[in-house]
Amino acid sequence: MKLAIYGYGNLGRGVEAAIRTNPDMELMGIFTRRDPKTVRPQTGAPIYAAEEIGRFRNEIDAVILCGGSATDLPELTPRLAKDFHVIDSFDTHAKIPAHFDAVDAAAKAGGTLALISCGWDPGMFSLNRLYANAILPDGQDYTFWGRGVSQGHSDAIRRIPGVIDARQYTVPIEEALNAVRSGEQPALCAREKHLRECYVVAAPDADKAAIETAIKTMPNYFADYDTTVTFISEAEMRKNHSALPHGGFVIRTGKTGLCGEHTHRIEYSLSLDSNPEFTAGVLVAFARAIGRMAKRGETGCRTVFDIAPGDLSPLSQEELRRTML
Amino acid sequence: MKLAIYGYGNLGRGVEAAIRTNPDMELMGIFTRRDPKTVRPQTGAPIYAAEEIGRFRNEIDAVILCGGSATDLPELTPRLAKDFHVIDSFDTHAKIPAHFDAVDAAAKAGGTLALISCGWDPGMFSLNRLYANAILPDGQDYTFWGRGVSQGHSDAIRRIPGVIDARQYTVPIEEALNAVRSGEQPALCAREKHLRECYVVAAPDADKAAIETAIKTMPNYFADYDTTVTFISEAEMRKNHSALPHGGFVIRTGKTGLCGEHTHRIEYSLSLDSNPEFTAGVLVAFARAIGRMAKRGETGCRTVFDIAPGDLSPLSQEELRRTML
Repeated sequence: MKLAIYGYGNLGRGVEAAIRTNPDMELMGIFTRRDPKTVRPQTGAPIYAAEEIGRFRNEIDAVILCGGSATDLPELTPRLAKDFHVIDSFDTHAKIPAHFDAVDAAAKAGGTLALISCGWDPGMFSLNRLYANAILPDGQDYTFWGRGVSQGHSDAIRRIPGVIDARQYTVPIEEALNAVRSGEQPALCAREKHLRECYVVAAPDADKAAIETAIKTMPNYFADYDTTVTFISEAEMRKNHSALPHGGFVIRTGKTGLCGEHTHRIEYSLSLDSNPEFTAGVLVAFARAIGRMAKRGETGCRTVFDIAPGDLSPLSQEELRRTML
Repeated sequence: MKLAIYGYGNLGRGVEAAIRTNPDMELMGIFTRRDPKTVRPQTGAPIYAAEEIGRFRNEIDAVILCGGSATDLPELTPRLAKDFHVIDSFDTHAKIPAHFDAVDAAAKAGGTLALISCGWDPGMFSLNRLYANAILPDGQDYTFWGRGVSQGHSDAIRRIPGVIDARQYTVPIEEALNAVRSGEQPALCAREKHLRECYVVAAPDADKAAIETAIKTMPNYFADYDTTVTFISEAEMRKNHSALPHGGFVIRTGKTGLCGEHTHRIEYSLSLDSNPEFTAGVLVAFARAIGRMAKRGETGCRTVFDIAPGDLSPLSQEELRRTML
């Protein structure tokens, strides 16, 4: 299967690496919106200007879109879906229904197949919410994120005057996790579930107290959480905070029996050294499924909920039954 | 959707309870191989003799088979698949390919749809092995079971002369779990992964030392494990060991990056107060999917790998995208 990468940031580089661990996949090329001459791939993959992609219609089985959800993907995914089978990782949960409709219309018009919101949340976490809800209808869901870097919260801190760089870690609160695991189905507010740990490089003349107050009182991002702010040097930021770890937990506890006398817990967790590289692994596995489904003549937009798991694996159905069932 | 239960032991009773928590499901009847007059349902469901099921072809959307894997299901599932859409929980891993072929042939001949090996292992654990392998091709799988009652091991102890009753708990070894979670991909033999805890009621005149030796040296079941044997009274067995808890862990750790420089862990775990009631919840959710797929005209045998997750949920695709993605 010949894949193209469209957008070459952290996620695009992760996809480039992930394709190499899947022998049935081949990277046809990387499409960038920067000047291709200034972009150096990690592997020997050819680099093209984004606007050239139209002339490769017959050489690409699917395009993995590695743009951002805020402005890139809402425009990009429907546009490319007219000509290509596409996979994106659109992750603005509230806007998924609108994005789905736009991509579905484009893919149906183009006779292509598209998969949106593929990654780990939305993605693998969504699948685990769905499976657990179907199995234990009488229960309660909990999702915790972290310990990991939130790019959105880090960016929000960087916009404060006097801030040179910042990294925000979302940290699940252990007591809350344990209360959830006990099966007692606690009601938990935002502050009870997660801490926010901020590491900030301030300009030499900056008012650190003002920066700390600006962070801790920022609505939506920090005001509803217990937040710690630690000022560090640029050298320390580079040394200790340049990785992009993440992870989290999807837990559902529920009751069964005629009188709800038995309690059960289903827990799915991820611990990731590199958020973009893991997300890339999910994207490439689902690209395999989209390629197969497209060959069977399917068109329109799909989500991870619509993909039979067997289509994700390079193994045949017989091999899967024999080795993994 | 109108379901029938065929076989009314612990699992059948679990399915009876699970159907009540799914408002779109209805229990049409329970089919038993015992004299129906001697069987009392937990709910108001009608009880029929097993051989009567043929005359209900038009009143049953799917039959959930609640027999054993050793002798019941290899004969039962293909036979009933000729006339009904069926779901079973066949769990003899090594014999799944042969069972699949027999059920597939029967279902294709009958124009019906069948799902085999549905539960948590095989079932949800299999799905998690598949997803994790597809996402992290460069990695290693580990499955741990317990802490929970193994019916097979308990039965093996009960066959020893002088044993009145027995319960065997499979216990995952915490150090092994933690070594796996670290990502270092340890090689673990059977003894390093699980302990076997046995509680035994011996006859008053039995030779307890001989029973203990017979257990600890029993090939396949106990000889390869560290095993503890505790003799208890019948009253203590009833009081402390009458439940059927179980659970376990599916963990995959793997590497990503151009040089495998990042490590990731995917972990799925279950903690179940009642193994049969949880398995029943899985069966009923997958029965929903089989009903929908049969309405779309699908025939033949399927496994959990072939089921798109969205088909398990009572929610519409739009609702799923809006609320769970």
